[in-house]
Amino acid sequence: MSKEIPYKIYLEEHEMPKQWYNVRADMKNKPAPLLNPGTKQPMTLEELEHVFCTELAKQELDDTTPYIDIPEEILNFYKMYRPSPLVRAYCLEKKLGTPAKIYYKFEGNNTSGSHKLNSAIAQAYYAKKQGLKGVTTETGAGQWGTALSMACSYFDLDCKVYMVKCSYEQKPFRREVMRTYGASVTPSPSMETEVGKKILLEHPGTTGSLGCAISEAVEAATTTEGYRYVLGSVLSQVLLHQTVIGLETKIAMDKYDIKPDIIIGCAGGGSNLGGLISPFVGEKLRGENDYQIIAVEPASCPSLTRGKYAYDFCDTGKVCPLAKMYTLGSGFIPSANHAGGLRYHGMSSVLSQLYDDGYMEARSVEQTAVFAAAEQFARVEGILPAPESSHAIKVAIDEALKCKETGEEKTILFGLTGTGYFDMYAYENFHNGTMSDYIPTDEDLKPGFDSLPKMD
Amino acid sequence: MSKEIPYKIYLEEHEMPKQWYNVRADMKNKPAPLLNPGTKQPMTLEELEHVFCTELAKQELDDTTPYIDIPEEILNFYKMYRPSPLVRAYCLEKKLGTPAKIYYKFEGNNTSGSHKLNSAIAQAYYAKKQGLKGVTTETGAGQWGTALSMACSYFDLDCKVYMVKCSYEQKPFRREVMRTYGASVTPSPSMETEVGKKILLEHPGTTGSLGCAISEAVEAATTTEGYRYVLGSVLSQVLLHQTVIGLETKIAMDKYDIKPDIIIGCAGGGSNLGGLISPFVGEKLRGENDYQIIAVEPASCPSLTRGKYAYDFCDTGKVCPLAKMYTLGSGFIPSANHAGGLRYHGMSSVLSQLYDDGYMEARSVEQTAVFAAAEQFARVEGILPAPESSHAIKVAIDEALKCKETGEEKTILFGLTGTGYFDMYAYENFHNGTMSDYIPTDEDLKPGFDSLPKMD
Repeated sequence: MSKEIPYKIYLEEHEMPKQWYNVRADMKNKPAPLLNPGTKQPMTLEELEHVFCTELAKQELDDTTPYIDIPEEILNFYKMYRPSPLVRAYCLEKKLGTPAKIYYKFEGNNTSGSHKLNSAIAQAYYAKKQGLKGVTTETGAGQWGTALSMACSYFDLDCKVYMVKCSYEQKPFRREVMRTYGASVTPSPSMETEVGKKILLEHPGTTGSLGCAISEAVEAATTTEGYRYVLGSVLSQVLLHQTVIGLETKIAMDKYDIKPDIIIGCAGGGSNLGGLISPFVGEKLRGENDYQIIAVEPASCPSLTRGKYAYDFCDTGKVCPLAKMYTLGSGFIPSANHAGGLRYHGMSSVLSQLYDDGYMEARSVEQTAVFAAAEQFARVEGILPAPESSHAIKVAIDEALKCKETGEEKTILFGLTGTGYFDMYAYENFHNGTMSDYIPTDEDLKPGFDSLPKMD
Repeated sequence: MSKEIPYKIYLEEHEMPKQWYNVRADMKNKPAPLLNPGTKQPMTLEELEHVFCTELAKQELDDTTPYIDIPEEILNFYKMYRPSPLVRAYCLEKKLGTPAKIYYKFEGNNTSGSHKLNSAIAQAYYAKKQGLKGVTTETGAGQWGTALSMACSYFDLDCKVYMVKCSYEQKPFRREVMRTYGASVTPSPSMETEVGKKILLEHPGTTGSLGCAISEAVEAATTTEGYRYVLGSVLSQVLLHQTVIGLETKIAMDKYDIKPDIIIGCAGGGSNLGGLISPFVGEKLRGENDYQIIAVEPASCPSLTRGKYAYDFCDTGKVCPLAKMYTLGSGFIPSANHAGGLRYHGMSSVLSQLYDDGYMEARSVEQTAVFAAAEQFARVEGILPAPESSHAIKVAIDEALKCKETGEEKTILFGLTGTGYFDMYAYENFHNGTMSDYIPTDEDLKPGFDSLPKMD
């Protein structure tokens, strides 16, 4: 390597990417289109823009334009917390005694605590540009809701968040961060929507679910003048915005003549993994370079490793379009796993297609091993990682230890999507030994697969 | 200005300071020495090293050496989370409509969430170098305890934290962060120390106090082989380590030909303010440059603005040396203020002397106004500030609005010491309108002043 690698590589502002990269443009097998759940026909722009902002609906449908300009206003917001550092994990390497070189792209250095802000600001921008009054969304653990409330605050846009009631009550801190940014946060199910009222009538004691919160948010967006619904993962538009992660990483690595052999990311809906790997997968698709790419998911919610590649509902309420993806079925109820952001039954259709075509592999890991890796990482690298991100840490450590055995000096890159400051109950369970692992049996998976829509 | 100022100025690693700056060397009127509370004579090195690490005791006594080398091991740790960004608050300026140029040095981008790590790593290093097994300390809100546990984890040193019992119970998250870093965290008062047992016997239901936790930590350090006591603020050694903040700021500003007119920091024990202003005050002391320097404290605990400049106990337990400082008296019980880090009855003796000599001024502000400023800042600058740091934000905004009235284009620099992720209960009180202000009457201050030691 020609230059000494610093602990942290920060790009200069002028080196930051000015365009997002749309990996679909380079895919020979395009991701299957979203379908109208009623007609089973591909969703049109007209249908999509009833729910989503028009520009975002266009991005959702665009699978041919390779580069899309990042508007000036978004670039300026990015400058407040980006470029994010690409960190050389010198201390972790030393601790592991591995000849491998480990790098991570750290997306947690902003108040939302994760990469979610990269897409939140883009979605808020397009909503504002369209002259909308506000947006609605749902949030489970609260990471996405926090990011969106920050973005809306910046553009002076109303932000209405339906927060799963049990999270609303058990995670008051995230709720208060959202309020600090001026968002209205409603525990879901609520009496504000027809679907909420119906659910409360049928199940008076319910503490809510993500599926129900989505349904309320979509209803609120489509029945209120000047509002649209926005989503923090899964959709191709979100992956597009998140490519800023991978593009920055690639520029920083190229600057120091670093080529990763292995690229690792955690995968829930797929937004961070897709964002990180896109520029690298692009090279792979075009036959310019090869990389080993590993998606890491929780063993308790194994959509890639044990799911089916099929059309499915994106939400349990079945109000959203059908997407073809690796899925456990919208009827699958994931067990209580502390990595709330990875508890999604499906997977981005872009990543699903890449996985099906063999461009990436997938591994599932159990949560106590993930928290042990998180703690080991925190103690040497200083950063307290989010449970979601720690899935990638676990596999990065595994790979580095394999190098120790074989003596290979592989270069490992992983995405560190966020910090765990609002996940200390989970760490407490880990410290107290009250955390358990859960791997669903084939029998457990059956109800989910049975819920898949018939596609004849 | 010759160059375009980016949103964030990051120094390159090679530009980071390699020495701390000891402002006492340039002070004509030196801070008064620490006194032995029994003999009222200046503390000797032999007396201090019974409690503190030897090298740190030497730094405490050294008021003549202007620059002290930062050991290589500490520099390497600094590289994991430093240089910290110097941020141009473009968005805040625009929101306020001020011609002032606002900069802040942001110290919250590390897992301890504050500047405390700068001194924690230095103190842990010297303890390790001395061959000690571990260190003890107390923590109230938990910021210092978190930083110290991270530093000890890095050097594989035992870390024993006495955490005020009410915080231990009400702030479980901070406690779990410390445990993640391997610290043992004991609610204080405990049955582990003589002083703890005595207090529990006398007050069985007590939820503890900082004074009691200090007494337990000092007892544990002085009665356990291979342990010393460490402290996160007030002491001159801590100010010395924190000068890395001001030195980085100065280097970054010089690089872009920026000269601040006003420098603002919050002041509890004084470590962050002292660290930020030291290189600037040095120029002022040497007659090279002039700066307006403002210390900001809570109106509820106004040691500089309403305290006496006198010798006092550093702790309520009266086990530590006497220090000459601006103080409300160790018997002063501050009201419940959400900026726990600013609830200290005294002030660094270095800052006290500088204030007494007219090198800096002081202002007190009320907490609801502080939280309103914090929220305004968070919404435009993205960062959710700690309540302590928000005291500086409040006065920076006040000064920027004055410039708006007068049309002056002043350059304002303030220290943003940390993030408020673990202070969301306080934000919740603010949002719910249940936060109140408290300004002690002269009558309220009397018991504190009556507790000052007789110094004849």
